[in-house]
Formats: sequence, C-alpha cells, structure tokens
Amino acid sequence: MLAKCMEPRVKNSSAIRAMFEAGVEMAKIYGKENVYDFSLGNPNVPAPPEVNKALIEVIQNEDPIKLHGYMVNAGFEETRTAIAENLNKRFGAHLDMSNIVMTAGAGLALNLVLRSILDIDDEIVVTAPYFVDYTNYVSNYHGKLVLVDSVPEKNFAPDMDDLRAKITPRTKGMLINSPNNPTGAIYSEETIKEIAAILEEKQQEYGHVIYLIADEPYRELVYDGSDVPFVPHYYDNTLVCYSFSKGLSLAGERIGYVLIPDESDNSAEFKTAISIANRISGGINAPSVMQLALAKCLDAKVDIDFYAKNAKVLYDGLTEAGFQCVKPQGAFYMWVKSPMADESEFIADMKEKHILCTPGSAFAGPGYVRISYCVAYETIVNAMPGFKELGKKYFG
Amino acid sequence: MLAKCMEPRVKNSSAIRAMFEAGVEMAKIYGKENVYDFSLGNPNVPAPPEVNKALIEVIQNEDPIKLHGYMVNAGFEETRTAIAENLNKRFGAHLDMSNIVMTAGAGLALNLVLRSILDIDDEIVVTAPYFVDYTNYVSNYHGKLVLVDSVPEKNFAPDMDDLRAKITPRTKGMLINSPNNPTGAIYSEETIKEIAAILEEKQQEYGHVIYLIADEPYRELVYDGSDVPFVPHYYDNTLVCYSFSKGLSLAGERIGYVLIPDESDNSAEFKTAISIANRISGGINAPSVMQLALAKCLDAKVDIDFYAKNAKVLYDGLTEAGFQCVKPQGAFYMWVKSPMADESEFIADMKEKHILCTPGSAFAGPGYVRISYCVAYETIVNAMPGFKELGKKYFG
Repeated sequence: MLAKCMEPRVKNSSAIRAMFEAGVEMAKIYGKENVYDFSLGNPNVPAPPEVNKALIEVIQNEDPIKLHGYMVNAGFEETRTAIAENLNKRFGAHLDMSNIVMTAGAGLALNLVLRSILDIDDEIVVTAPYFVDYTNYVSNYHGKLVLVDSVPEKNFAPDMDDLRAKITPRTKGMLINSPNNPTGAIYSEETIKEIAAILEEKQQEYGHVIYLIADEPYRELVYDGSDVPFVPHYYDNTLVCYSFSKGLSLAGERIGYVLIPDESDNSAEFKTAISIANRISGGINAPSVMQLALAKCLDAKVDIDFYAKNAKVLYDGLTEAGFQCVKPQGAFYMWVKSPMADESEFIADMKEKHILCTPGSAFAGPGYVRISYCVAYETIVNAMPGFKELGKKYFG
Repeated sequence: MLAKCMEPRVKNSSAIRAMFEAGVEMAKIYGKENVYDFSLGNPNVPAPPEVNKALIEVIQNEDPIKLHGYMVNAGFEETRTAIAENLNKRFGAHLDMSNIVMTAGAGLALNLVLRSILDIDDEIVVTAPYFVDYTNYVSNYHGKLVLVDSVPEKNFAPDMDDLRAKITPRTKGMLINSPNNPTGAIYSEETIKEIAAILEEKQQEYGHVIYLIADEPYRELVYDGSDVPFVPHYYDNTLVCYSFSKGLSLAGERIGYVLIPDESDNSAEFKTAISIANRISGGINAPSVMQLALAKCLDAKVDIDFYAKNAKVLYDGLTEAGFQCVKPQGAFYMWVKSPMADESEFIADMKEKHILCTPGSAFAGPGYVRISYCVAYETIVNAMPGFKELGKKYFG
C-alpha cells in the first residue's frame, strides 16, 4: 500500500507518537501542571499585535478578489518588495522583489530548493547534530544526507577537515542552520568564511555549483546581542530559506521565503525554477491573506525577553545543579550533555521527575538531550527541583 | 545547477511565460479592456462574506497562541470534525475527524498522496485530456503518468477497454477529476461504477491496492442541477483530494484536505502516512487561521450564478457562431473543438481578435482549446464579435 520509502517513516513515527501518548497519560495521572514537557518547538509567545491589526486591515480593505486569489507563484509584489527592502536596510544588501520567492514556511522553502537541485543519489552535507526532518526532506527526492562532524569546543562549527572530506562529485549543497536547532549555537563570521572557502575550492575542483543553503527560521531569536552573519555576503551561491514561524510566532500559518541572490550562478533561471517548484510541489504559493498582512508588519517583533528569561533561568539552574549545557546564543533550545553516555537512561530518569525532553540521538547527537524552552516560565521553575535532585544523584 | 528533471520544466515554463508576456504587450497596445484573456483559472467571484466574518471573529477571539501556532499535522480537530459532519450531512457518509487530513489545497493533497504511494517507476493512470500539472506531481516522486483515452461522445468517460489495458503491476492509482478541468464534464454514477469494477478486478489480479484518487476542487461548481457522485460510496480504496479554492473562492489561501475512508485498506496506517507526508513535504500543516475560520463557515457558498451566466452566454454565443463546444456541467472551463486539426492555427486566429486561451495540447487534448470563463461577464460579451467573425470565416 505504502511506497517503500514511506514505510520506515510511518514505523518511526509510531515511536514518537508513543512518547507523546506517554506524556498525555502522565498528565492524566499527575495533573497537567505537574508534567513538564520540554519536547516541542511550538512558540509560546503570541504574535505581535501588529500582525492581527494588519490581517484585519487587509481583510476589510483589500480588493476582495485579490485578497484570497491566486497571484504569481513567487508571491505578491508588495510583500516581496517589502521583504527585500527590510533586508537591504538591516544587512546592507541590494535585493529587490525578484530575489524573493514566498513559500509556505522554511520547511517548504527547503523542499523547493532540494526539488530544484537534486537528482537521484545526489548529496547534501550537513553537520550533526541537525534538525531531524532534513533526512526526510532530502530523501523525498531520493537524495542522500551526508553527515559532517561538528566541534562542540568550537561552538559546534563544522570540523573543516571532515567537511572537505565529505564533499564529493555528487554534492549539490551544504545545509546550515544558524541559530541552530538543537544546539542554540550561532555560526560566527569566521566559521561562515571558512565554510565558504571550502565550498569555493570544491566548486572549482568539481566544476559545478555547490549551494550553501541557510535554513534560518531562528534568525530573529538571538540573545545577549549575538550577531547572525548575513550569509549571501560571504558566498555567492547562497540560498536563504527563511520562515516567520518563530520571529513573528506564526508557525501554524506557514509563511516564509527563498532568497536567491543575483550573484548566484544563473540566478534568473534559478529564480524561475524555484517558482516552478512552488507550483508543482502543490504548495502553489504562500497563503494570500498572510502575505498581504506581512507587507504591513515586517518591523514587528515578538517578545524576545520571554525566551531570554527562560534561557537564563534554565541555564543557571541546570549548570548550578552540575549539568553541562551549551549556553544558548539563539533559537529556543538548550543542548545538555547527558551524564551517561547513553542518554536514554537520562531521559528515563527525567521521566520519573515528570520531565519530558528529546534524546540527542533523534538529532544524530547521541550523549545529549534537547530541552525546548519555548514553554511557560513556570514550567521551568516547577521542573527545577526535579533537575536538582537528578544533579545531586549524578554529581553528588 | 538544476536537477535534470527540472530542466525541461524550466524550459517549458519560459514558453508559457512568453505567451503571458504577449498578453501583457497586447494590453499595452490595445488597452486592457480590449484584450480578452480566457487563459487563467483564477476565481473571479469574491469569497462569500461569511469567510471574512469568520476570519475576523477568530482573529479577535481565539486564544492568541492557538490562533497562529502549530497544531497536529493533520489539522485542528474542530475543523476536521466540522468537515466530516458537513460531508455526512450532504452525502450520508459516516466520517469523523480521523478521516480528514487538512492540507494546503488539493495540489498539495495530491502530492501527499503520491509521496505516500509512489516508488520510482510506479504508475498512475489518468484520462486525457487532463490538468497539466498532474505530470509534474507524479514525476516529483519519479513516478510515471500513463494516459488513458476518454470518449468525447460519452461525456469524456474513460475508454474502459483502454483503462483495463493500461493498468499494469506497477499501477498504484487512478486519478480522476470530476467536474473536469479542462472539459467541464462530470462523471456519472454509471461511469464511477464501471471504473470501480475495473479497479477491483485489477486489485484482485495483481494482489495490491490500486487507489482511486478523486481530485475535486470543482465539486461545488455545478450547473443545471448536475450531480457529482460521492466516490467513496462506490470504491473502498478511494482517496478524495479536495480544495476550497473554487467552492469558496480561496485559491490563494491554499486550504483543502485529503479524505481517507475507514473502508480503505489499512486505513489507520495510511492516515498516519498522509500526516507524515504533510510534515516532511515541508507543508507541515494547512494554514492555521484559515483552518479555524473554515470551521465556522462551511455552509457558505460562492455565487454560482455568476459562472452559470457566463457559461450560458459563452456556450450560446459560440454554438450560434458554429463552434462545437462541450456544454459545461461543472467547473469554469469550456472545451471547444478547433475548426482545424492543429489548434495552434485557431489560437493564432483568436489572438488577432485579441482573444487569448489555452491550446488543448497543453492538456494532452490536441484539436481543442480551453476557454476559461471565470472572467468578467463583459469580457465574454466584448469578445463575442471576434468569435462571430471567426465563425463566419470557418463555417461561412
């Protein structure tokens, strides 16, 4: 009944579902307020008020046919122009609407890029740990995801020797995700430059384009004044896959874009390819009313302090209890070293304290766990006694 | 730079783009009101007022985190329940929310189904003429679209002998589209029964599931009391791919669903597969705010009379001028026989009268043209003198 490639996905999903159902069962027994679920990545901060204001404004005032109708597959001109101008202002870029293709979020943006560049058995390199669904995105088109080691001591930058070794004649791109899910790390300018140099070298060697695909749903969620380099400044064949899911708390609305710089190889043809990929993926275009609203509220910001406060109390509490954590520079995840090599024991111990989070192995990062802190502040505070008890048990 | 499979798509797209640009050029020369563009399928009737009312209501009153946040990949429970109940009421079905997976329109719904069932070189059968992008949807997953003849004299029903002959051990499904783009025809109950019998026979013969995939974006656009049979009543392994694009004029919003009946093979596993396909396609879920609004306005209807009036004046005018047209039962397209075997000559003659429409060859239906009448009534009235002159030229 199912395609062969779908079978393991469905089987694996049942395991995740079992974990989710265990959480629901625990909530029934102990009360929802006594179960501390840090497993999901759903923003817990409302969209800024400008978004709903803009939505109501376009619903009430826009031409009714335009409001909910098709537009060109790349999206409304005013939205793409507003985004280009916003990026020009913030990063000194020289973009116009032709550089932006609106998509139903970064997940679809990545799929459109992969659809456009992958033939069967082509390769994409990515550093581990990485967002789980990258494997599925690449295998949707029968490509292969090739893992490159990262260096925890260097803020999870790629092991540059390993990166060089893993790029083959079949490599069509490298996927990066900074701020990172699951580590919360941000690639420094130096790291981006080193990556760019290696990709340039390999493009020369193999005589074809190797794209640097920057998955940036967490670009706006940064702490302590951290800087996220604007990748197209460092490498011509960059493609940015952006989402408003986290920066404007619009995860359910599916709105984002692919940015194709003019400096990239044969950019006019590639822009057309991404638009076509949008159409033939069945996505067709990003949702109409949300595109129109977005053009009016691009300067809005979610309450970053909410996440910053959560990050601080969680980091301080866990390190005090003896745990080794990566201090988050961005996103809303904390990457915590498991006291035991096999983190499933740590996960089991936490479960006894009613704490749920995701094993690092799910991100190809065994020996760690991911604690998602896009939760109520109280959840962290109330979970802390459990963490402290575990700290005492492990570290005395 | 591009994947091999994308190259012909990009090349072909330039040809369509050239036609579109020719239209824009003509409008510049002759004035927009003097160019009659019947080439597009964008609804020209506003969404019913209930939709915007419901949108504003949920934006103002819904919990702000829920309003724009992630939900399960299958969609909000209230939306799926409301749709199931609406279908139960209209068609005497026995559905609940578990049978419905919300998607970003029917185009994505079809892609999720194909992603779930197709391995490389698996086959999908479809009658010609057919909606052009089916080829791309199937080849996204390296499947093959296999064409079956239709019988114009039998309302474009499949040639049943040809259907039987074209189903092979690699056939995973048959795709039907009724009301049809481009012919406007609706499959009768008898036709559905004949198809079902052949698929049942072939399932037995080959020992695996063959899905009947009903692409139904035009279900609500029917004229003269025509009836569109509810396909799951006739064949257990039916999957309905539905869209609100046309029925509620929400084409730009990307909202629809896949319906998986409990009677279908291993339905629980397949429901999971479609949810997973939604996630890994990058679509993740159908847009949140539109899902919530939809739950409150499912009984709304667009002004069908607008299309019915257009259909009548176009059909009467063209037949009076001597053209052979398929009388539309549904959708908003008229399928017109070209007076010359090669319809590109007819297209060129129409262009001289500033009339733009789509050659049948683009739908694997050479010798015909598709005239889309989701346009202003005046466009049809004003184009009619040109059609009459051509009728005089061809038929005397």
